[in-house]
Amino acid sequence: MTTPLVRAAVLLIGDELLSGRTQDTNLRTIAEFIAPLGVQIAEARVVSDEPEEIVAAINALRARYTYLFTTGGIGPTHDDKTADAVAAAFGVGIDVRADARAILEAHYGTTNINEARLRMARIPDGATLILNPVSKAPGFQLGNVFVMAGVPSVMRAMLEDVGARLDGGAVVKSVTVRLRGAREGDLAAALAALQEADPDVSLGSYPWYQPPDGYGVHLVARSADAEALDRARAGLLAIARDVGVEGELV
Amino acid sequence: MTTPLVRAAVLLIGDELLSGRTQDTNLRTIAEFIAPLGVQIAEARVVSDEPEEIVAAINALRARYTYLFTTGGIGPTHDDKTADAVAAAFGVGIDVRADARAILEAHYGTTNINEARLRMARIPDGATLILNPVSKAPGFQLGNVFVMAGVPSVMRAMLEDVGARLDGGAVVKSVTVRLRGAREGDLAAALAALQEADPDVSLGSYPWYQPPDGYGVHLVARSADAEALDRARAGLLAIARDVGVEGELV
Repeated sequence: MTTPLVRAAVLLIGDELLSGRTQDTNLRTIAEFIAPLGVQIAEARVVSDEPEEIVAAINALRARYTYLFTTGGIGPTHDDKTADAVAAAFGVGIDVRADARAILEAHYGTTNINEARLRMARIPDGATLILNPVSKAPGFQLGNVFVMAGVPSVMRAMLEDVGARLDGGAVVKSVTVRLRGAREGDLAAALAALQEADPDVSLGSYPWYQPPDGYGVHLVARSADAEALDRARAGLLAIARDVGVEGELV
Repeated sequence: MTTPLVRAAVLLIGDELLSGRTQDTNLRTIAEFIAPLGVQIAEARVVSDEPEEIVAAINALRARYTYLFTTGGIGPTHDDKTADAVAAAFGVGIDVRADARAILEAHYGTTNINEARLRMARIPDGATLILNPVSKAPGFQLGNVFVMAGVPSVMRAMLEDVGARLDGGAVVKSVTVRLRGAREGDLAAALAALQEADPDVSLGSYPWYQPPDGYGVHLVARSADAEALDRARAGLLAIARDVGVEGELV
């Protein structure tokens, strides 16, 4: 019996990602964290801080994939709209919750808790909290949706609590062969033939240019099947030899 | 009369972006390039190399926004499926075209042109070519969709040809005030009040942590209205003073 793949989506929330002010790194961090747990990212979206946009994207993605991971929009300021959007997407209520409030009070002290900080204790009905060891204000999980902070160091810390909750499937691994000085057009036919011969692997080709080092191609094989991956490794190294290059496993 | 905003979407295509193998930078590059031309990115998506996924995303985004910019999937290898997907999305034919073929033959020489390289001359019917001064194989524009390479240096070069074709609207500018040692929860109420008072600006708050430098907040105002932006700058600096910090324009 073959273990099925488990597919997930990522939703990155925030005007700053669309304006170019902020370079996202969370997508890659999430993908690399969950792959060994047997969960693959199949789609990602970036939306602005508009509530209707967030709600629509949450509902489209949570229906389609086993898991949805969101980042951003759960801070104390007016432009943090994710918690309310998740509640609206699920059609549930949202209010300041005692357990989340207790976490914030322990961190800020009861006298420093103000209305803005209490926004971070607003949790949709039925959600469980996601631990935030860095800056304390929790994320939360509602159904198959995991709501995390946007700040990369905080998001990364929250993943530790999220990981244990995932019911993963087959683990997809990859092999990368670096061909220095090779050109895609000279190996494309052989690569297509290798792909055609082995549907259990997914083969990709990624050209690189690094002046003054020159140029080349990375050939990547991905599969949940260890034997298929071994075959693909041999096949990619053979392709390298055929174009007169020593393929380097990287 | 107020100049309207022109909104666009970005579609990033490729398994390698979803697996975490590759860190995207094209979204930010496009956003920063087109903002001064009066075009704002309102949404972005990342999809795999699955043709149906690419077609669905192209059709959803080109219908909704004035422009759609895609990157990735126009090389010579079997996993490059974007050109066919664009043709399918528009319901038009696609074939090797003489002008694109001539560009490739001039670059590779007629004897080095093989079937794989000719894939890069497959252009959907009705499209115009986008110049690629770096690696020659052209991108193309069909309707409001601009199809560019995924390699960042090539994509960036193609933008130069794309920029002149955009009919932009109002130019959104931004002001950023850096508050070292401030915490979002202490300024959120004042920031919300400033936002409430001036609907012509969009205010955002972005906490930062930089051990060992400490922590702070970036307050960002964005607007197409220069006077509103001046008011917001003054307002943000006043918020900084009110929390006992000297706001720094960055």
